[in-house]
Order: sequence, then C-alpha cells, then structure tokens
Amino acid sequence: METDEKIILVTNDDGITAPGIHALIDAVRPLGKVVVVAPDSPQSGKGHAITIGVPLRLNQVDQFEGIEAWQCSGTPVDCVKLARDKILHRKPDICVSGINHGANHSINIIYSGTMSAAMEAAIEGIPSIGFSYLDYSFAADFTLSKQVAYDVTKKLLESDVSPNTLFNVNIPVIADTLEFKGIKICRQANAKYVEAFDERRDPHGKKYYWLTGEFKNMDPGEDTDVWALENNYASLVPVQFDLTHYRMKEEMEKTWKL
Amino acid sequence: METDEKIILVTNDDGITAPGIHALIDAVRPLGKVVVVAPDSPQSGKGHAITIGVPLRLNQVDQFEGIEAWQCSGTPVDCVKLARDKILHRKPDICVSGINHGANHSINIIYSGTMSAAMEAAIEGIPSIGFSYLDYSFAADFTLSKQVAYDVTKKLLESDVSPNTLFNVNIPVIADTLEFKGIKICRQANAKYVEAFDERRDPHGKKYYWLTGEFKNMDPGEDTDVWALENNYASLVPVQFDLTHYRMKEEMEKTWKL
Repeated sequence: METDEKIILVTNDDGITAPGIHALIDAVRPLGKVVVVAPDSPQSGKGHAITIGVPLRLNQVDQFEGIEAWQCSGTPVDCVKLARDKILHRKPDICVSGINHGANHSINIIYSGTMSAAMEAAIEGIPSIGFSYLDYSFAADFTLSKQVAYDVTKKLLESDVSPNTLFNVNIPVIADTLEFKGIKICRQANAKYVEAFDERRDPHGKKYYWLTGEFKNMDPGEDTDVWALENNYASLVPVQFDLTHYRMKEEMEKTWKL
Repeated sequence: METDEKIILVTNDDGITAPGIHALIDAVRPLGKVVVVAPDSPQSGKGHAITIGVPLRLNQVDQFEGIEAWQCSGTPVDCVKLARDKILHRKPDICVSGINHGANHSINIIYSGTMSAAMEAAIEGIPSIGFSYLDYSFAADFTLSKQVAYDVTKKLLESDVSPNTLFNVNIPVIADTLEFKGIKICRQANAKYVEAFDERRDPHGKKYYWLTGEFKNMDPGEDTDVWALENNYASLVPVQFDLTHYRMKEEMEKTWKL
C-alpha cells in the first residue's frame, strides 16, 4: 500500500450480500484502498436510525473479493460510526454508499438508509456520496451506474471541497446507453408519497397493515433530480444537513411575537 | 364537538406510556380535539425510519384520559402515516410530537424520532412541531415545557403559514422559572457527536459494542439553538426538508466539469 493511497469506505443499506455493493466496489477500486463495512441484513427505509437499545455486532467477512470487509448487525449509520471508531481508527478519505437498488431522488433522501449513511459520514467530516440506480431488480445491469460512480468519486477525491460535502447521485434506467446524456447538477424535487395502507386480517381475524404508497412529483422545474432522471441524465444533488429554514426564520423574526 | 374545532394529532418517539406525551396532551387539549397515535414501544434514535419488511399493528387504547388514542407497532413516522390514512381519514390541522425526554437541538434533529414524526407531517402538508425537554428523567417536571408547548402550538394554529411548516422546539432545564427568558427563534447549531463505542465481551467471549458518544458544539454563534438553551431561552428552529445545498450547487455549476 502506497502511503498516499486513499482510504475508501464502502457501505450500503441493502446489506452486504446485495449486488449493488459489489458493483460499487468494482467501480471505486481503482481509486484507492477499499474497506467495506455494511449491514448484515437489508436496512432499506431505515432513515437516519441508530441503534441504542441493543448492542451491536461486527464480524469480519472472509474471502470478500480480496478486500477487507465487515458486516454489522446495525443500521447504515451504525456502520459508518463503527467503521470510523473500531475498524479504520481514522477518517477515511471518502465514503461511498450504495449502489442502492431503487431510487433515492427527491423526498426519498429523507427515508433512505443509503443516503443516511453518506450523511453520517459528512457530519463526521468525511466527503461522501450516495449512489442509487432506478432499477429495483437484484439482476439489474450496473454498467452505467458503475461508470457514474467511478466518475463522481474520482472527481470528488480530486476536488478541494469541504470535508462535510455530501452528494446524492441517482442513475436512470436507459435501454441504450448511447442515449445517456451525462451527469446533471440538480436540486431536490418537491415530491412526496401518497400513502395507501394495504389492510389485511391475520389468521386470528386481527387487522394488520402493509405500508404502500404512490410517488407524486409536484415540481414542474427542469432543474430537479426527477426531471433529470426522466430525461436520461444521472442526477447529482449537493446535500446539506443544516435543516434551518432560513427564509422562514427571517420572516418570523420580523412578524412573530413570542 | 364544534364544527370549527381543530384536530390536533399527538405523537412521540418515547412511546405511548412516556410521561412526556401526557404533558403534551395536557398542554394542547384546550386548543382543539386531540387524537393520539403513538408507538407502543420506545423509538428513540429511529430517525426517519419507516417499516417496510413487516406489517404494522394498530390498537386502540382504552381509558386514555378520555381521548381517542391508538398505539402502533411501528416507528414515529409510521404513526403519522397511519393516523392520516386509517384513523383520521383527513389531514389534522396540526401535528405535535413529544414532549421528548431529552434534547433534540442542533444535529440531534437528524437522529430524532420525535422530529422525524413532525417532519413526516410537514411533508404531508400538516403544520407540525416537535417539542423536547432537556431533562432525560421520566420524573421530570414538565411545567415550563407545557407552557411553551401551549404557546407555540396556539401561535402556529392562529398563524397563516405554509402547511409544510415545521418547528423544532427545545425547552431548557431551569431551577427557578423566574429565570426563563422566553422563546427565541434560532438556527440549528453546527454540532456533532464524537463516538466512543463501549466494547465488551459476551459470556461466550465474543465482542459486542454499545454506541456512546460525547456531544460537541463547534458553533460559537449566539443565534443558535444551543446558545439559546444555555442562556435560559427555549429555542425554536424553523425546519425545512429540501436538503439541497444551494450555495454549493451554484459553485459547482460554475466550476465542475462532469
């Protein structure tokens, strides 16, 4: 290992056995020394959950493409915290999360374990990127996603940016890669899910509910991630974790008496 | 029930048996018709997690201070989704979450189930407030917190604001309430946790880890929530869920070639 080799922490939320994380490892491996710390089970929709009430387990995985890999019993955010404190004993140069099986554009960022892992890294001062491919299938073709992951990771490693930098990158499903238009810097689309719980009865006659919902984009803008993906671009949204609504703060300071 | 009576959805992340939710119900009860939908077990640190892999249970609680109350097997975010879709069958006029046992100022907002429930409501177009009291004890005195919760909820109900409005309100621990200086509109302090996992061995000799960490405020500003709380104010941070980092987006559009 050369002394100036970059340490690349790889994690995800679909779990260490998901094809997407192997695609991501393939993509970034030419850029530095890869260390994998990922959940031992699927953690989709875990948001920024951390594990408080039960202790965490961490086990090294043998024969993982010849690289150092660990599986963790906790959430994606736990993985990043444990990687920093108990495995690397230093900050990695970059953290990449994914490649998620399914979209994390627009409001999905709030629910996404993939993006929460990346955000946790950015909070800790590690430049970080979450990658998501709009194909849910575990048999999906990651060729284009790998190219995008390599390009964006290389660019971020070479850039002089704040250590708190965080990107949300989504890759469209395109039948003919010649139609791919490139990577577009976007804002988060104003979108939401309209819930429709699926109500059923168990064998004992008691009700239970499955969460389902329909995605609804309410944003007509052509500068959003949803627009970009619908128009054969990969979307790149720079993300912040200061959630202060500054415009409203200013308005309230003028008009609210408390 | 008068036809113009406001519907107030109450939830939390400490679970339906926590004293804090009863304090919140007491506080907002004079302001409308209260309906409670809260987790059936503690959900602290669950962030914006939703339940995908298992179905959800929802059970009505008898004799809950004479108000309609439901306990849900899911996360705080699940509670808000189920309340809207399966209990109220309409949007409540406001959603209040808490009163959390412990601080949710600064970076805590990212991990907080209390704030994620409120954020979910705001995403769905329901003005929403998360309340947190800086005393972790279940025997804490909620007198001041109840007064603040009443005042802010009343103010928001009477205000003509966007339905996507979301506030993070924290209440300080003050020995003598005469020293309370009022409610201060703030920004989210730049702070983080420095992790220190507590490593132990189980009776079989295998390692496990407890997540612990020390809070570190890196923000010298006197306009932050942390500053306000240290100076005997309750903090009120208006919160947004568009996480786009617009300043970085502008910079990247000028300088990044992708």
